[in-house]
Amino acid sequence: MRDVMVVGTGITPFGELWEHSLRDLGIRAGMEAIRDAGITSSDIDALFVGNMAAGRLIDQTHIGALIADFAGLAGRNLPTVTIEGADASGAAALHHAYLSVASGLHDCVVVGGAEKMTDLPDPEVTEITATALDQQWESFFGATLFSMYAMMARRHMHEFGTTREQLARVAVKNHRNGALNPAAQFRRPVRPESVLEAAEVADPLGMLDCAPISDGAAAVVLCSAERARRLPGPQVRIAASAQAGDTLSLSSRRSLVGFDATSVAMERALKLAGRSRKEVDFAEVHDVTTISEIMAIEDLGFVKKGAGGPATASGMTAPGGELPVNTSGGLKARGHPLGATGIAQIIELVLQLQGKAEERQVPEARVGLAHNVGGCGATAFVHILEVA
Amino acid sequence: MRDVMVVGTGITPFGELWEHSLRDLGIRAGMEAIRDAGITSSDIDALFVGNMAAGRLIDQTHIGALIADFAGLAGRNLPTVTIEGADASGAAALHHAYLSVASGLHDCVVVGGAEKMTDLPDPEVTEITATALDQQWESFFGATLFSMYAMMARRHMHEFGTTREQLARVAVKNHRNGALNPAAQFRRPVRPESVLEAAEVADPLGMLDCAPISDGAAAVVLCSAERARRLPGPQVRIAASAQAGDTLSLSSRRSLVGFDATSVAMERALKLAGRSRKEVDFAEVHDVTTISEIMAIEDLGFVKKGAGGPATASGMTAPGGELPVNTSGGLKARGHPLGATGIAQIIELVLQLQGKAEERQVPEARVGLAHNVGGCGATAFVHILEVA
Repeated sequence: MRDVMVVGTGITPFGELWEHSLRDLGIRAGMEAIRDAGITSSDIDALFVGNMAAGRLIDQTHIGALIADFAGLAGRNLPTVTIEGADASGAAALHHAYLSVASGLHDCVVVGGAEKMTDLPDPEVTEITATALDQQWESFFGATLFSMYAMMARRHMHEFGTTREQLARVAVKNHRNGALNPAAQFRRPVRPESVLEAAEVADPLGMLDCAPISDGAAAVVLCSAERARRLPGPQVRIAASAQAGDTLSLSSRRSLVGFDATSVAMERALKLAGRSRKEVDFAEVHDVTTISEIMAIEDLGFVKKGAGGPATASGMTAPGGELPVNTSGGLKARGHPLGATGIAQIIELVLQLQGKAEERQVPEARVGLAHNVGGCGATAFVHILEVA
Repeated sequence: MRDVMVVGTGITPFGELWEHSLRDLGIRAGMEAIRDAGITSSDIDALFVGNMAAGRLIDQTHIGALIADFAGLAGRNLPTVTIEGADASGAAALHHAYLSVASGLHDCVVVGGAEKMTDLPDPEVTEITATALDQQWESFFGATLFSMYAMMARRHMHEFGTTREQLARVAVKNHRNGALNPAAQFRRPVRPESVLEAAEVADPLGMLDCAPISDGAAAVVLCSAERARRLPGPQVRIAASAQAGDTLSLSSRRSLVGFDATSVAMERALKLAGRSRKEVDFAEVHDVTTISEIMAIEDLGFVKKGAGGPATASGMTAPGGELPVNTSGGLKARGHPLGATGIAQIIELVLQLQGKAEERQVPEARVGLAHNVGGCGATAFVHILEVA
């Protein structure tokens, strides 16, 4: 298969965007990505959209067709598709868009992620995010996404002595990073005490341990390396696009303190990229809760299992640390519009690799990694991007 | 890209399957397809699922992971994904599964379609199918899928003199075909008078002009030609997998009497297959309403625009006719579990091409075509399959 480049990015601010519909958001991100790539919409061969739940959130399926239509792409009868893998829908869309270019089927495609979550009351949104769990054995009985992660956090504390304060450090770091990201939902730092004192969501996790409910859209343009040569740079290569799965229900898993899907996707990605972990300069990981980030850096193999809490407390994952993690603010502070998250992660990688991340720039960033998880770990994607 | 074969098929009966959950149905179809292929689940590299609306119909997203889990595939950390293109979700899943094998990423994958529609009251299901239309400009104001097709039917009658009786002929033919299909929801013939006298859904369409609400699942196994050589035959090659799109809202279209997405997908498919229309021996088309089939045979170019009604009345599309259409019973009589339909069409093609269609066998079937539409024509797929 041939090399695939990311040649343009577009993102809306994430947040409670009362004045914008999903179609507005999708079009804004998509058109910005096309402009950023220095191409026109007539260069686009297909549109891929990552979306988890618009059928329930806004009574609209067929989102791919919707966005193509209102972005003025319908006249060319472009193929469009919506791809879903719970809140890994963005990475899933990227994976299949990547494949369509790598295989030679298409030369140039737009892949976006979008979600409009704030049109419904919060409890209903909580129910909708819980559709990513096993409905028959988990969510039907009242389990929510955050309550599942809370159980994992308790077990992680029990097995490894991970502390409440170490969890809080993830939120503090990611809020500090988010404050520097113009697209972030929360652009203010939080103090460790605020995280510890915040209202409880599911013991031991509080409000500031959990990603918010967000509206937003993000899009990238992918081209074959050959087609990309005629475009302005700097360009970024997708060195690996890898996926792994696991049982849907947490109760069937081998372990409660990590995701095998993440570890396996990581091994597959490193093999595809021909890289070692040491070569990864920075990472965006799926911090839907604070414990999620701690487990992610362990499952990705950047620290050994159980060492994620102390590593975070030591500043290893902070800006200037050995492996800066979630320089964008992560899901926690940038926001988590389900289907958009996987693409927003890729955009942070591209900005860092292009040296355009401004105040949050990682020095000499050459290789970046994005990690997007669906639900409570039944789906995981790892993408590795590098300077072309 | 390399040749891709369909090496196994599995389908549940379609209907009101109160005693089966979506996971049961998905697993039954998938395991049957794997057995039929003469392989084991350890040969499978990935699972693709076409599903339109389980997030609303049964509060479950992440269906790919669900089915892999309960089919016992989770231990191998297989990649899974759910693909949505309204009621063309089945064909959309097939398209991307095909690409994953054609590109060399995978050697052997399962692609299934499934929907469980009867757990909610009918009016709610009607609302859910209408999410495939433009929510902001169509369904919000009360438009349903069938009301949109009814408008097209009226316009078709006005422009071409298509008659109510010609519409009824589609239902009569497809019910007669469905009576011969063990997987069909309706296995009884209907008289033309019954179609004309049935309760009105949206003038001029009545109950017997419209596809039913259905539960069901269908799955096929795809392998590379090389991998397939070691399997028992007869095997069927995917000669073309083509897609086209159009505006989401009907009001923005060039024409109200057909779907450009169908015509464009057909041209793309014929080019990919290196075939002419005359070489197509039989077809499964998207007869979600009777007018849909008449427009489909026109848009696919088997008859000229406007001639679909008389052609149907002449018996051209009946068994023994020049181009047998919907020998399976079509959406009308086999049933229409949204995401499953596109795969069920492919299964009918495979059975016919393998000479296994029993009482409904098309003599000397060498080339078959499947046409799956999303919503009211914003997405269309054409697949051409042939004896390998």
